[in-house]
Amino acid sequence: MASSSDPTGDGFLLRSDPSDPRLSAEVAGIDQTGAPVATRVVTEKPLTLFLNRQEIVTMMTIGDHPDLLAVGYLLNQNMLRPDDEITAIDHDEELDVVVVRTTRETDYEAKLQKKVRTSGCAQGTVFGDVMASFEGAALASEARLRTSWLYALTHRINTAPSLYLEAGAIHGCVLCQGDRPLVYMEDVGRHNAVDKIAGWMFLNVVPAADKIFYTTGRLTSEMVIKTVMMGIPILVSRSGFTAWGVELARQAGLTLIGRARGRRFVALAGQERIVFDSDPDAAPDEAPRHRRKSARKDEA
Amino acid sequence: MASSSDPTGDGFLLRSDPSDPRLSAEVAGIDQTGAPVATRVVTEKPLTLFLNRQEIVTMMTIGDHPDLLAVGYLLNQNMLRPDDEITAIDHDEELDVVVVRTTRETDYEAKLQKKVRTSGCAQGTVFGDVMASFEGAALASEARLRTSWLYALTHRINTAPSLYLEAGAIHGCVLCQGDRPLVYMEDVGRHNAVDKIAGWMFLNVVPAADKIFYTTGRLTSEMVIKTVMMGIPILVSRSGFTAWGVELARQAGLTLIGRARGRRFVALAGQERIVFDSDPDAAPDEAPRHRRKSARKDEA
Repeated sequence: MASSSDPTGDGFLLRSDPSDPRLSAEVAGIDQTGAPVATRVVTEKPLTLFLNRQEIVTMMTIGDHPDLLAVGYLLNQNMLRPDDEITAIDHDEELDVVVVRTTRETDYEAKLQKKVRTSGCAQGTVFGDVMASFEGAALASEARLRTSWLYALTHRINTAPSLYLEAGAIHGCVLCQGDRPLVYMEDVGRHNAVDKIAGWMFLNVVPAADKIFYTTGRLTSEMVIKTVMMGIPILVSRSGFTAWGVELARQAGLTLIGRARGRRFVALAGQERIVFDSDPDAAPDEAPRHRRKSARKDEA
Repeated sequence: MASSSDPTGDGFLLRSDPSDPRLSAEVAGIDQTGAPVATRVVTEKPLTLFLNRQEIVTMMTIGDHPDLLAVGYLLNQNMLRPDDEITAIDHDEELDVVVVRTTRETDYEAKLQKKVRTSGCAQGTVFGDVMASFEGAALASEARLRTSWLYALTHRINTAPSLYLEAGAIHGCVLCQGDRPLVYMEDVGRHNAVDKIAGWMFLNVVPAADKIFYTTGRLTSEMVIKTVMMGIPILVSRSGFTAWGVELARQAGLTLIGRARGRRFVALAGQERIVFDSDPDAAPDEAPRHRRKSARKDEA
């Protein structure tokens, strides 16, 4: 399906649209000299999610693709199962409400009692049975990551039009296949960007075993859990690691690559999937405008 | 009190200790050439918080200062009121449990039903009545921020020993007074760093009206709400803004300064508290090793 179409005109099947006036706003202020400046900032608004008659959560989001966000959130929380049939997804833009309707009636009162606050740019609540599913997950051992793909992906992602380049202060997650970024979702909450991609995969019945997941954010325990839950065997970030994120990735057999910037990266789990088919010194290094985080640690 | 002592030897009253072996770990992996590398990563572990007999939440944290984190979390969630008397804070390091005991018995069953997932590196749940307190908050109009203080603070914070410089992938928040950083807390979740500072202020009966709050993270709605809840009139970040963060800061009369790196910054709310007493061109610019985020937006 990677070659089926090019709706965005730059190789992506879907991405957040930096030109959408609903996603960022021009705000007036002053700079360090006291001179007036106008600057673009990303939008952040509440979206309340219902699963059938059950109110689940209110999320702060930039607001694009509420249908994907709703479905992906429910999947990543184990509130929706892969075999569930979605009969309707109703979004009311005025009320900031999205309702996911399924044939199977659900009730999560009990689950909503037990919550775990997770780390980093985390969605804040992970239900107990998510860890059970995590432990039961099996990732494709035959999946591979060519370093030539990695260098091509990071370059394409960094240079694609994005809200980050437009207004900053936003996270991005990208679903990739081989050397092609397929779906690039951005959000004020990184967890929302992840959930939108999970929703897109579910609604488009996209297999996970041959995919690579890229994130601008840190490789915390929650990012590792979500990637494994989604069945994606390879997780790449331009940011760093946490100790528990590494431990969980090793438990699950997830290939975990961090600090991927320009020609550099570090792999702390699942190294056996990496195919070194590219000379790092021949890889393009990053233009300063694409540096989101300090490269200092890489220079060590 | 800013001049009362210097326990850390570098001007801070308290900061996360990068030399504490419990806060980071050496992990083995490979780099882009396939060569083995050993790299430090920050710790991330669960801490379950009880208020008296009520289990409140399980947080993912680096694990330092659980007492400050516990008290600050409860304060910022309005589960603990300024007039509450804490009789004990018991931390069981083996069970990863912290219990805050108060004279007034509390029950938050009802509150735990209603939660709002907030954005960015947010703690994930904000209870309804927090917004009510936010709307009732009044910030010190006489407070000032000299640009000379801002330049001194950012330089001192960037050059202080930190887990960020040691292992990366961590957020930092700093309570400041004038040109002096007082308390520098780091955590995998920025919300935890904020809460630790709130806890320190409460337990040390530190006034908020003359303080400045610095964060490495984005100025989302939640950061603005927390700062206002803490009664601190000035919020500074090296990162960017969200539209709702700016809107809430303007509603509350909070001075909101973002993209503060080297000599540059942008103020989008409460500009009247800023005193331009320093020539930006004379301010030191940042060494590359202290750049956490792309400065691109600033160069626009």
